[in-house]
Amino acid sequence: MPEIAIVLVEPLHEGNVGFAARVMKNFGFSDLVLVDPCPLGDLALACAMHASDVLENARNLTMEEVFSEYQLIVAATGAYSKSVCRSTRMPYYSPREIREQIRTVDGRVAILFGRENRGLSNEEVRRCDLICTIPASPDYPILNISHAVGIVCYELADLPRGLYQLAEREEMERLYEHLDTFLDRIDHPDFKRRNTLLMARRILGRTRLTTREVSTIHGILRRAEWHMEEENPEEKKGVEE
Amino acid sequence: MPEIAIVLVEPLHEGNVGFAARVMKNFGFSDLVLVDPCPLGDLALACAMHASDVLENARNLTMEEVFSEYQLIVAATGAYSKSVCRSTRMPYYSPREIREQIRTVDGRVAILFGRENRGLSNEEVRRCDLICTIPASPDYPILNISHAVGIVCYELADLPRGLYQLAEREEMERLYEHLDTFLDRIDHPDFKRRNTLLMARRILGRTRLTTREVSTIHGILRRAEWHMEEENPEEKKGVEE
Repeated sequence: MPEIAIVLVEPLHEGNVGFAARVMKNFGFSDLVLVDPCPLGDLALACAMHASDVLENARNLTMEEVFSEYQLIVAATGAYSKSVCRSTRMPYYSPREIREQIRTVDGRVAILFGRENRGLSNEEVRRCDLICTIPASPDYPILNISHAVGIVCYELADLPRGLYQLAEREEMERLYEHLDTFLDRIDHPDFKRRNTLLMARRILGRTRLTTREVSTIHGILRRAEWHMEEENPEEKKGVEE
Repeated sequence: MPEIAIVLVEPLHEGNVGFAARVMKNFGFSDLVLVDPCPLGDLALACAMHASDVLENARNLTMEEVFSEYQLIVAATGAYSKSVCRSTRMPYYSPREIREQIRTVDGRVAILFGRENRGLSNEEVRRCDLICTIPASPDYPILNISHAVGIVCYELADLPRGLYQLAEREEMERLYEHLDTFLDRIDHPDFKRRNTLLMARRILGRTRLTTREVSTIHGILRRAEWHMEEENPEEKKGVEE
């Protein structure tokens, strides 16, 4: 993903600026730009929590500076049904679509968020290259600005996700075989066997087990087998001979 | 999507409860459940803005009641690297993956969010059916709870998005033909023609024009053609005969 700045245009409430800084940092963003913001004091810092660095490094720029410094500028606008019909705010993209639009851009990208009470002006929106609208309920489509910043950052974040190792197909097959011998061991009726094994395959297939979980299930089956042998020493003997 | 409740477990700050109610309503959710919450007063109402109905209809339930009332319970947990290795909080799904997991569920689903200072306890997480973790920056992975609620609601929302009519392929072909005759009209050199038309097709293809935009471009080309004819009346005459 390209470098992305979050630009708050004339924010009115310092708490929102602090919350925006926090949620930016949550998703790995640090370039915060403020255009003619309200005074920022203790409340902004309190809302930023451990993102005070983002807040303190925020740059104050004019609109003109924003438009000359960034190569691709995205206007984040509220979802007004009326806006859909007007080319000022149309066509618009969801945050996920914006991600696709900008992921191959090599350049500086800015996302503009408007004032809490009246968003971005038509004139500001007209100058932007792309329009981003968060799909929201027609009953109450106006998000708090820091929530809008959060959702856009969430979509545009390029974070590695922790991985867990899914069991290989071969490990799963060995588990199904073990289940089959286990069913044998407990005298599960032959005529039901095929359906029961299929159901086991369906259940365990859709749960997508990790390697560790597969080995835990093997362990439980083995432990049950041992107990059955201990309680039937004759049988155990038979197995060992 | 199934019915989905947002459950806040022992929230500590009434502002967060109000913000959570607001962002729920933004994405069309209204079933807010509170387990042993802090007192809710004017600040909660102020933060809820036009979602005071969600706040006022919130139900106070015990954990036991939550677990008996909902059939599928998802624990929303922070992204701690340590947690990935422990089966209490593993495997986990991103909000988008949770959407896929629950979209075909016919039943009552609850998403649990923990306390601001220490999240959900291991014991609470253990009882849940699925774990949801929002992928976040290792530098600062702890989201404000209302931002976490917002991102989960954004992913789980089932909102129709406003549609705009993309131009049909046939309309696009007519536009490319028009461009070709226009290039003729302005004596664009033949040897460059093929590449220029290809570039036009590339540019207009990736912009995915709406029907209305196509007709505007036709209009501009036609207007330019008229002007050229007016300034060269002889030529115009030739065309008309």
